[in-house]
Amino acid sequence: MRAVDIIRKKRDGGELSREEIAYLISNYCQNKIPDYQISAFLMAVFFRGLTDSETAALTREMEFSGMVFDLGSVSGRKVDKHSTGGVGDKTSLVIAPAVAAAGVIVPMISGRGLGHTGGTLDKLESIPGFNVRLSADRFREMLSSVGAALIGQTEDIVPADRKLYALRDVTSTVESLPLIVASIMSKKLAEGIDGLVLDVKTGSGAFMKTQPEAEQLARALVAIGKACGKKTTALITDMNQPLGRLVGNSLEVKECIDVLKGGGPADLTALCEELSAHCLVLGEAAAGLEEARELYRKSISSGKALEKFREIIRFQGGNPSVVEDESILPQARHQKILRSRSAGFLASMDTQAIGLALCALGAGRENVDSVIDPAAGMRLDRKLGDFVEAGEPLCTLYYNEEDRFREAAPRIEAAYALAADPPPRRELILAVL
Amino acid sequence: MRAVDIIRKKRDGGELSREEIAYLISNYCQNKIPDYQISAFLMAVFFRGLTDSETAALTREMEFSGMVFDLGSVSGRKVDKHSTGGVGDKTSLVIAPAVAAAGVIVPMISGRGLGHTGGTLDKLESIPGFNVRLSADRFREMLSSVGAALIGQTEDIVPADRKLYALRDVTSTVESLPLIVASIMSKKLAEGIDGLVLDVKTGSGAFMKTQPEAEQLARALVAIGKACGKKTTALITDMNQPLGRLVGNSLEVKECIDVLKGGGPADLTALCEELSAHCLVLGEAAAGLEEARELYRKSISSGKALEKFREIIRFQGGNPSVVEDESILPQARHQKILRSRSAGFLASMDTQAIGLALCALGAGRENVDSVIDPAAGMRLDRKLGDFVEAGEPLCTLYYNEEDRFREAAPRIEAAYALAADPPPRRELILAVL
Repeated sequence: MRAVDIIRKKRDGGELSREEIAYLISNYCQNKIPDYQISAFLMAVFFRGLTDSETAALTREMEFSGMVFDLGSVSGRKVDKHSTGGVGDKTSLVIAPAVAAAGVIVPMISGRGLGHTGGTLDKLESIPGFNVRLSADRFREMLSSVGAALIGQTEDIVPADRKLYALRDVTSTVESLPLIVASIMSKKLAEGIDGLVLDVKTGSGAFMKTQPEAEQLARALVAIGKACGKKTTALITDMNQPLGRLVGNSLEVKECIDVLKGGGPADLTALCEELSAHCLVLGEAAAGLEEARELYRKSISSGKALEKFREIIRFQGGNPSVVEDESILPQARHQKILRSRSAGFLASMDTQAIGLALCALGAGRENVDSVIDPAAGMRLDRKLGDFVEAGEPLCTLYYNEEDRFREAAPRIEAAYALAADPPPRRELILAVL
Repeated sequence: MRAVDIIRKKRDGGELSREEIAYLISNYCQNKIPDYQISAFLMAVFFRGLTDSETAALTREMEFSGMVFDLGSVSGRKVDKHSTGGVGDKTSLVIAPAVAAAGVIVPMISGRGLGHTGGTLDKLESIPGFNVRLSADRFREMLSSVGAALIGQTEDIVPADRKLYALRDVTSTVESLPLIVASIMSKKLAEGIDGLVLDVKTGSGAFMKTQPEAEQLARALVAIGKACGKKTTALITDMNQPLGRLVGNSLEVKECIDVLKGGGPADLTALCEELSAHCLVLGEAAAGLEEARELYRKSISSGKALEKFREIIRFQGGNPSVVEDESILPQARHQKILRSRSAGFLASMDTQAIGLALCALGAGRENVDSVIDPAAGMRLDRKLGDFVEAGEPLCTLYYNEEDRFREAAPRIEAAYALAADPPPRRELILAVL
């Protein structure tokens, strides 16, 4: 077998065998096939796509390129939730404790902020002392004793994805549906889960701007999950505005604590309930969705979810008092309200632009070397469809550096669009696959 | 400017500016852009193509990646002929002396055999002592004193093409029309010519199997030649059978000497006359094609072309007596006739298969390390349309090693197809662009 022939076969629209895909990926990981052949292959995949069975083979080969968690020693069903990313998308911090409190194990391996989207690890690290790096043994131990763990990826999980992603990033081959699917699913399968709930975002703050694109991705993810023998459900959810009221790392932790206490904004609580319910169904803690929703609500109302969050924080080295005393979280020195210049209905928000402006404010990374300001962020004083008078608040920015405020504020203001008529009401959950 | 953005622009079907192409190529040649970005770019070009102006920019950038011959010190018009490659395609050895004898300078930089196709340098080197490596100064000196020179490419001419071709070869990005065009034209333009006659082959022994493909390539080559300010003419010629009667390095030299002496097979003499006539027109030695053909015929009949060939051989270190005494050329120890097993009209030949079988016989390279046997080759005892009785000769193989004969002979026999009816007569020259 030769890499050049496999590249040609894909270039000419042929379907690769499992052996051909395994040959490419395993030899690439061993540095026996050079970057320049793989980047040509990736570009050919960009144009020709991959069939479902090619994508499954690629996913499997990537999954087994490194360590795969063996959670056989952890009793119970294991289910994870994965989101394709958005702004203010903080549901993991609610779902992990709520679902674990209801009896399903949640082995959650998350990522950091990327571009305009936030990252679960960055949010957790705003809790003083919280450690997202656990050894495989400690991870298993935590799942057995606590029932949930929220950690970051390690060097030995799916090394093929790190190598491939780094190459895709510099060769303009990121935006390929089957490559996105294989990247997401290989990492999730390596967690050793039984089931996976996918939150595929669509809208101005999502990678998939339109619902058909999001549905295409969701269908492909579900197909690969099932082909690999995992129960997989995907929800298509709206990301035309930040989720909840607070955006920014410590601000989002605070908002999640509100939700775990039974409060929090309506959109965030509704999405946490729905995603958790699907996790509980896949985890066989409930026979149907209605029962699962009830289980979630009990998990919250009984205080068990909040207590589970406290356990998670304690096990991972963080200060669990944060759930009673928010002042433990990093606080911004300044906050300033951005007021509407005119009256009207809030008709649309360029949520990606807001996410990028928040990076400039310090809440995310503008480049790989950026240091995050965990206190920086915003509060949404109006959400889509709300009416605002001239001079009334649109949002409030939290920040530590005036320079950053001056850079971010006009960009955030420019992302808001008002209209004389109220916009059509949007569904939060657009489809379930 | 960043390579990743230029790759994305091409990937998405955009047209690159001259500056963007220059940025990619010049930085690649300086090893400032890595292979893996260029291979992704080349694959994007494979799928998206290049516009004429992008191809011209690429050609120019490649041309000026190294030394470009300045032939200002050589008086007279300079014209070259380039063939896209075939089997038995030996016209350069006739055209260079014939055109030079008629007063047009021929600075010819040729290549070696590649795959099933023969190479001018390999043919010349079958003449004892013939040196295809001249310094730039000796090349200019030879053009001034002899009027023609037949040399190989040097390290410092179009280094971008060597680097790009090596990468294309291992990333399945060879078969891209604009990349083929830029590769050919950058090398030809670097010769410092005023005009170029292209012999674009089509048929079973050509890279372009069909006439439409060949015409597409020819049109692209002519467009780029003209865009770069060179007079350019392309002939589409038939390569459904080897050209002439003899194939193999020293055998082809012998056949060319026959043509220079006024003899030789009809197809070869006709093509040499036509290509030479176009060279003479572009070189302004004749006002029109009819006059140019007359000039060519005089160049042959007067013995001036043969004398010019002798001068070329002498200047380049070869033994000029070869034109009188063919026994100076390497001779094969064995020759064996392959006889037809049945009667019929010779209807078709898989000329590429014949070229590859001749490599096995020793006449060409099976891989980059192969050493050529200059005496190995074949004589075509029948050509397309000829009738052959069972037991009559189809062709004669010349060889030195029995093993090689046993390998090649059945493959050559299998490449012949007979039919009960004569095949339609084929034109040798199919189109002129």
